[in-house]
Amino acid sequence: MSKFNYLNIQEAYENIKHKLIKTPLITNDYINKILNSKVYFKLENLQVTGSFKLRGATNKINKLSKKQKLAGVVAYSSGNHAQAVGYASMQENISAKIIMPKNAPKIKIDNTRKYKAEVILYDPEKEIREEIGKKIARNENRTIIKPYDDHDIIAGQGTVAYEISKELENHSIIPDIYLCCCGGGGLIAGTSTYLKYRYPNIQSFAVEPFGFDDTKQSLDNKKIIANKPGKSSICDALFAQQPGELTFPINLENLKGGFVVSDKEVKNSIKVLAEHLKIIVEPGGAVAATAALTNKINLKNKTVIVMISGGNIDFDMFVNL
Amino acid sequence: MSKFNYLNIQEAYENIKHKLIKTPLITNDYINKILNSKVYFKLENLQVTGSFKLRGATNKINKLSKKQKLAGVVAYSSGNHAQAVGYASMQENISAKIIMPKNAPKIKIDNTRKYKAEVILYDPEKEIREEIGKKIARNENRTIIKPYDDHDIIAGQGTVAYEISKELENHSIIPDIYLCCCGGGGLIAGTSTYLKYRYPNIQSFAVEPFGFDDTKQSLDNKKIIANKPGKSSICDALFAQQPGELTFPINLENLKGGFVVSDKEVKNSIKVLAEHLKIIVEPGGAVAATAALTNKINLKNKTVIVMISGGNIDFDMFVNL
Repeated sequence: MSKFNYLNIQEAYENIKHKLIKTPLITNDYINKILNSKVYFKLENLQVTGSFKLRGATNKINKLSKKQKLAGVVAYSSGNHAQAVGYASMQENISAKIIMPKNAPKIKIDNTRKYKAEVILYDPEKEIREEIGKKIARNENRTIIKPYDDHDIIAGQGTVAYEISKELENHSIIPDIYLCCCGGGGLIAGTSTYLKYRYPNIQSFAVEPFGFDDTKQSLDNKKIIANKPGKSSICDALFAQQPGELTFPINLENLKGGFVVSDKEVKNSIKVLAEHLKIIVEPGGAVAATAALTNKINLKNKTVIVMISGGNIDFDMFVNL
Repeated sequence: MSKFNYLNIQEAYENIKHKLIKTPLITNDYINKILNSKVYFKLENLQVTGSFKLRGATNKINKLSKKQKLAGVVAYSSGNHAQAVGYASMQENISAKIIMPKNAPKIKIDNTRKYKAEVILYDPEKEIREEIGKKIARNENRTIIKPYDDHDIIAGQGTVAYEISKELENHSIIPDIYLCCCGGGGLIAGTSTYLKYRYPNIQSFAVEPFGFDDTKQSLDNKKIIANKPGKSSICDALFAQQPGELTFPINLENLKGGFVVSDKEVKNSIKVLAEHLKIIVEPGGAVAATAALTNKINLKNKTVIVMISGGNIDFDMFVNL
């Protein structure tokens, strides 16, 4: 594969657009007023399976050969990629095995099973999910659908930005700043690539939870740095240990830097998004909005894109925030 | 004005489309599966001001003369129309006075004030809002912006259906059934008019909360029947006393009938919509979805449009459902 670029994303969009919801891009008076800026929220929490992850999974699974489809797939994920692979596999009648941490949110485990995937729970403190995945792949000849470190996955996630730019184009709007959550970095790698192509002057930033700011650390040091073990956060969707081998070089080229937000700040911004945007956002899906709402960066008079990446939060957790 | 018809709605759409969010039309696997049908939810809770009411208010206010705009407007509303008139007036620098019940949801009163309208609270058990409105209109030469019984308002609300049909057209989908909440009947009158024009065989139904089923009673008896006093419901957006003089004849012509839902059923469906659609819906905005989710009508193998009309629920109420 030649160097990853916007053409991969355009191609992915053509491949998957009929299987996706074109999610809305919403702006809100109250939030624009308090930030003194124009903020556009891309609502991937309204995507099928409740997160953007369906885009990458669908793109990857579409590209499998007939033989690979027959043999089935295997994936490891804290939850959103799990649901996406389960759903995309179900659509194509492909057998899917998904390795999930036993402490993943119940909604994510339940939904993955609903999509007819076989869920294999593991103990994240004692086992390494990649190793379980590789073993199953080898023994059963299944294709591993990686959560982020795969150009087909990155291209699929990048299609979110294709939709954003089409929508902005309709209103003749040029964005100044892009804020996006970052776990393994697949979503931000894909979207920042497309946005940079469309808006060469845009400034893109990764947002991560405290304790899991491996991408910010890696960007600051211009090399891959892993998170220190033993940290916890409510942002379960963003628990990658370190930037990907494929995602990091892309992000290093595209991103201006990173911001870090606390669980407390995230909880508060989930409430603001519920009250004013009328949407349910999961913690990992709310970190970019949190960076905006807590003024991690001065957005005054700027036009800003904020990624809302997912909405799979247990209802009990939501009402007890 | 000649007989109200779909042309009024097309004209309204041209007048107001640049001031609105084109809200998404979402379908959800989980809900389609449990109902064995294909349900499309129109998310007007994501509309500016948190409900569809902005459409009618904007259409009406746009049509005022310069002199009328200078003299200002007055409106009475339990909350969503209040916010809509406040917001639409603020956009045009028009002075707005809004008469609201003192027990309206706090979020609705607060937001109306945020939109720079002067809020006048009244006691709904002792005072009649229409009389307060008329007095202010007379004394201050203000134009009354009625909540539903006005063809410009009905045409504005009808634009929701214009968007729905454009979206369905893109996917070559013909709907069989339309379920919509009903208070004074402005939204359902406008939208059912447009849907009937586009899909002559569609069956449209009003959904109301227990104790406030004046439209169902009136449809069943083919004459306007008021609600009996002394009832209560959590669906504050749907507290009209009786069908409108203008809305009822339209609804009598367009609608197949009505369904009634309980507060308990509504609370449950708000949770389902939060968990599966990732959206915050207010009680009045959730009654149509409730009729579907509680099988008030057999939807098997049908293509169904369900109106989600608003999302202005106090967060405290939401988390304590």
